Amino acid sequence: MVQHPDPKYMRRAIELSAKAGIEERTGGVFGAVLVRKETGEIVGEGYNRVLADHDPTAHGEVLAIRNACRNLGTHVLEGCVLYTSAEPCPMCYASSLWAHVEAIYYGATYDDVKKYGQFEDADFLAEINASDEDKNVKIKQYLREEAVVPWKTYSELTDRIHY
Amino acid sequence: MVQHPDPKYMRRAIELSAKAGIEERTGGVFGAVLVRKETGEIVGEGYNRVLADHDPTAHGEVLAIRNACRNLGTHVLEGCVLYTSAEPCPMCYASSLWAHVEAIYYGATYDDVKKYGQFEDADFLAEINASDEDKNVKIKQYLREEAVVPWKTYSELTDRIHY
Repeated sequence: MVQHPDPKYMRRAIELSAKAGIEERTGGVFGAVLVRKETGEIVGEGYNRVLADHDPTAHGEVLAIRNACRNLGTHVLEGCVLYTSAEPCPMCYASSLWAHVEAIYYGATYDDVKKYGQFEDADFLAEINASDEDKNVKIKQYLREEAVVPWKTYSELTDRIHY
Repeated sequence: MVQHPDPKYMRRAIELSAKAGIEERTGGVFGAVLVRKETGEIVGEGYNRVLADHDPTAHGEVLAIRNACRNLGTHVLEGCVLYTSAEPCPMCYASSLWAHVEAIYYGATYDDVKKYGQFEDADFLAEINASDEDKNVKIKQYLREEAVVPWKTYSELTDRIHY
């Protein structure tokens, strides 16, 4: 039985963050590891590759989740703990919810990544919470009736898999 | 000059949603397309593949963003409009912010996807907004001083690329 948080996992996440931001220069200073809570086995790792992969979703946490799911052949990471070198942005936090991770430990804060890297994660949270009218990225509902048609068919499938 | 919203793009997103949820059964009923605002060119498409790919981040919008970025060789989609068959979850909305898309149009609402597919996107938004103490997925700050060390090095790099 492993106790969490355990510094060795966070240190691995920090090591990966340095790889991303300083050594390989693949993106910002962000790294993450996923650990099976009970056994302490590292089941997935990731580090920011936004620049290297031309992929704005290639954050450390997202890549660690995708890596763990690929390794385990599942889309759910129940019983896994996420260690990430910095406070997860809303995309990464929501990814963790979809993956059903059990707990999250983070190192640097939103303030730190803004101070040292001009990353504006906190502003994204405000943007998500703004009403649709107040958002900077305009978002509007459109053609709802047509979009609902396949949902009605889907709702009648007897063998669909929920996730 | 193309006017937005244009129904043909939303209909393509809806077509992709049916492919995902009904025809190929790769995941939920979600599809998305990215369109260059001025020319109307479709630069990326995606449909939910969570089940098929064992990837909880493989939502229609995320895959459309990744597809467009790969096609264009960039991590920014300025001047692009996202059409998605359903209201984007917080992960997908934040992905759109990171990608700098210009506007978002969505078809079905959170209520629709809950009613017809038991998807709880609205609950995720509440979870993101809950204080750390009130979150269902426990999140805690840990080893901040160590995590900040590589950030200090990073902040002194003279040739780092901001995104």
